[in-house]
Amino acid sequence: MEAQLQRLKAILAEVADLNGAAAVLEWDQQTFMPPGGAEDRGNQQATLSRLSHVTFTSPEVGRLLEALEPHTAQLAPDSDEARLIRVTAREFRKRTRVPADMVAELAQATTAAIQVWQEARAENNFAKFAPHLTKIVDLRRRYARLFEPFDHVYDPLLDDFEPGIKTAEVKKIFADLRPRQVTLIKAIADKPQVDDSFLHKTYDEQKQWDFGVDVITRFGYDWNRGRQDKAAHPFTTNFGLGDVRITTRVFKDSVTSALFSTLHEAGHGMYEQGISPTLSRTPLGGGASLALHESQSRMWENLVGRSLPFWQYFYPRLQETFPEPLRGVSLDSFYKGINKVERSLIRIESDEATYNLHIMLRLELEIALMEGSLEVAGLPNAWNNRMVEYLGIEPPNDSKGVLQDVHWSSGAIGYFSTYALGNLISAQLWERIHKEMPDVDDQIRRGEFSGLLGWLREKIHRHGSKFEPQEFVERVTGSKINPDPYVRYLTEKFSKIYSL
Amino acid sequence: MEAQLQRLKAILAEVADLNGAAAVLEWDQQTFMPPGGAEDRGNQQATLSRLSHVTFTSPEVGRLLEALEPHTAQLAPDSDEARLIRVTAREFRKRTRVPADMVAELAQATTAAIQVWQEARAENNFAKFAPHLTKIVDLRRRYARLFEPFDHVYDPLLDDFEPGIKTAEVKKIFADLRPRQVTLIKAIADKPQVDDSFLHKTYDEQKQWDFGVDVITRFGYDWNRGRQDKAAHPFTTNFGLGDVRITTRVFKDSVTSALFSTLHEAGHGMYEQGISPTLSRTPLGGGASLALHESQSRMWENLVGRSLPFWQYFYPRLQETFPEPLRGVSLDSFYKGINKVERSLIRIESDEATYNLHIMLRLELEIALMEGSLEVAGLPNAWNNRMVEYLGIEPPNDSKGVLQDVHWSSGAIGYFSTYALGNLISAQLWERIHKEMPDVDDQIRRGEFSGLLGWLREKIHRHGSKFEPQEFVERVTGSKINPDPYVRYLTEKFSKIYSL
Repeated sequence: MEAQLQRLKAILAEVADLNGAAAVLEWDQQTFMPPGGAEDRGNQQATLSRLSHVTFTSPEVGRLLEALEPHTAQLAPDSDEARLIRVTAREFRKRTRVPADMVAELAQATTAAIQVWQEARAENNFAKFAPHLTKIVDLRRRYARLFEPFDHVYDPLLDDFEPGIKTAEVKKIFADLRPRQVTLIKAIADKPQVDDSFLHKTYDEQKQWDFGVDVITRFGYDWNRGRQDKAAHPFTTNFGLGDVRITTRVFKDSVTSALFSTLHEAGHGMYEQGISPTLSRTPLGGGASLALHESQSRMWENLVGRSLPFWQYFYPRLQETFPEPLRGVSLDSFYKGINKVERSLIRIESDEATYNLHIMLRLELEIALMEGSLEVAGLPNAWNNRMVEYLGIEPPNDSKGVLQDVHWSSGAIGYFSTYALGNLISAQLWERIHKEMPDVDDQIRRGEFSGLLGWLREKIHRHGSKFEPQEFVERVTGSKINPDPYVRYLTEKFSKIYSL
Repeated sequence: MEAQLQRLKAILAEVADLNGAAAVLEWDQQTFMPPGGAEDRGNQQATLSRLSHVTFTSPEVGRLLEALEPHTAQLAPDSDEARLIRVTAREFRKRTRVPADMVAELAQATTAAIQVWQEARAENNFAKFAPHLTKIVDLRRRYARLFEPFDHVYDPLLDDFEPGIKTAEVKKIFADLRPRQVTLIKAIADKPQVDDSFLHKTYDEQKQWDFGVDVITRFGYDWNRGRQDKAAHPFTTNFGLGDVRITTRVFKDSVTSALFSTLHEAGHGMYEQGISPTLSRTPLGGGASLALHESQSRMWENLVGRSLPFWQYFYPRLQETFPEPLRGVSLDSFYKGINKVERSLIRIESDEATYNLHIMLRLELEIALMEGSLEVAGLPNAWNNRMVEYLGIEPPNDSKGVLQDVHWSSGAIGYFSTYALGNLISAQLWERIHKEMPDVDDQIRRGEFSGLLGWLREKIHRHGSKFEPQEFVERVTGSKINPDPYVRYLTEKFSKIYSL
């Protein structure tokens, strides 16, 4: 068995090398690549991706897994080896079930759809995009059917991002959450709005960059194993556990945009920097799921970075950095300003309190599309109706409505809900952390984050993707994903800010 | 035949993709990678390099070449297809003759040797390095013997860098060149030295960077298909013909170091940017040889960048950029300063007039080591004796003598001569260019470089590596590599500067 396990690990290491190389190429493409590099880069990525797929799904891997699986019963169930075999076998069976033709067809369809989506959004022309989206929905339904029998046609898509979670679970969570969040937003809307105009004066870009760097250095982001560069759409990537990079973008007319993006990406980055080196170059050497990943980024961005204790420490420093634009702005005003709740048409511009409603809307539409209860042609109407129902505002056009996000054109149906689940998990962890470390707010107030990061490393990060999300959240917090802590968190926070 | 050619091209394209990906990883390693990334990067590079080798040397490639070669007689001998088959077959036969064990053994030996060489140089301890160098010389001799019969044991090593060139040819060229260059240096040494102290005042680093960027933009370096970054050891790399990047380093106390390094690397870069897109993703999509490559970098750095016409245009701009440190320095003084001839112990610090002597010394020692007429233990003495003979100076220690360069520890025996051959070719091309474009100096004096670059693109760049160096130089200049134009160039230039 040992020899077979070593052989399996050697193949998986080669796959990890190819994926790591592809990640370097992708990072370069998003940060530094000149326009002329695009064509060759596409070819290189296609070759690396094909080799990675062929290597991972080779018959030899299948034989090794078949030989190894019976032996896992003798291993400790939570051991790296048992989990490695289990996670690899799960992924192998999913990947080998998809015919190469379908992979190619989807790649072709999404390449075209992304192009057309960009045009359609610019021209506010949903009809132009509709046939492409119809094709993608069809391909995703055919993909799902490869995994029959299933409880719900949306399950296989969700499973690609959140292993093991079922559509029924997510629906139940969101059905529970939605009315409570809608009620909260309505209560806030009835109150006088806070002022945040001072956030949009002129703020030196280099000083913004340096401030963000200083904050995440205090958080514990490891520069020896990372770096930050500029990118149009901020992201985190890793080329192995020793090189986890983040990106951000800086706007002169916003003091918080770059900062919160840096905190968010550093949250992702510290997660990956905290994964046990023993899981390096294996399928376990990444985050447990997109929602778990998002729980980390949103914790550092929101639960830490938009909290009063955080700013009790950092606001004097921020004022010192930008004395002119922040003159006369009190800590209290600043704190309220960065937590302003505003019903917005655009998901990525929305705040902590409204964000999940944007997600729920998308989730419901995705499920309906996959079920066939909604046609692509009916999407703009369905979108706009829900915007009115959940947020009380109606998009003036599809560019600011159903056409706003890239996800569907890239085939990523099933992705959105992970953002909202991440929010819920972050609040569950936050309650747990406060139970186990009652003085964590005081630590933050002193600019100390090693206690918090240490807790996350111990409970979450080091385990990589050994555990499935529901199992994992339950291990750490005592219950599966549930919206109560998040609702408590929002209610408490915004009741104070808006005097509800 | 067409189907087989397409299949061969598809395999070669995959190899090109893997090599391009490896080049991105290497570039990142030299420019941006944090220290923590080193271990995974090593694994990724090993995997890419192994896959590239396995793919290129596969039995299928051998069969395709065997099937295709008889048909090349029907193709135009200089056609892309005929040359592709010929160059690929040549490379295939070389690569498949080397046992995997020997490749692995050399990789291991050089990894250790580079490490020990760094220590030995720091400690001025040749004895520490000697056993490692002995091992490498032994491995390189065993490598050479794989290609028996040969005229000279050094031939197979030289051939890796300069396809088709024989040791006898190189020896003859240098035997002809050496006494003439030694005589010139001695004549210069008898004259009063020029002053270059103003070059080493304080020069703002960003302004230096911008000045270099401006110059190579005028040269015609294509930023749409390239970029410049900082690196400790400047280099040029490409990830395909649409993405050719250069690097430089900037020193506050030198106004020309970064500039000449930028011009040099841009010379390499423009060569690769000028290769015909039809050769993309094939073994023909690179420079013809290291010497040809060096002929381009040195032409832009030296024959253009250290010429009087160049500075007649650029010196007023440089003075405007750095009014303070260059106050009162005339164009004539500046021109003499940047062309100061000084017998130096260190190759990379040496000037145009003495550079080749450093190379000849190394070439002779390499040949003697490979022949077995010199033992590694005798190397320091042999080095120091030649330094006295050729340059009239003696290294005070081995760190400033035989231990100064990394090449041998990396196994690159046969590499050095390409630097000197590049100088010779650059002067041959320069004479030819002046014959065909008699007003080229006037163009340069006006800051116009499109005529020169256009000529190089037409005659050299676009052909990629279709032709072997000797054949290529003869096609373009009418004679094989020969030292006369270079000696004429040096003599004329330095006779004026030093009033010989």
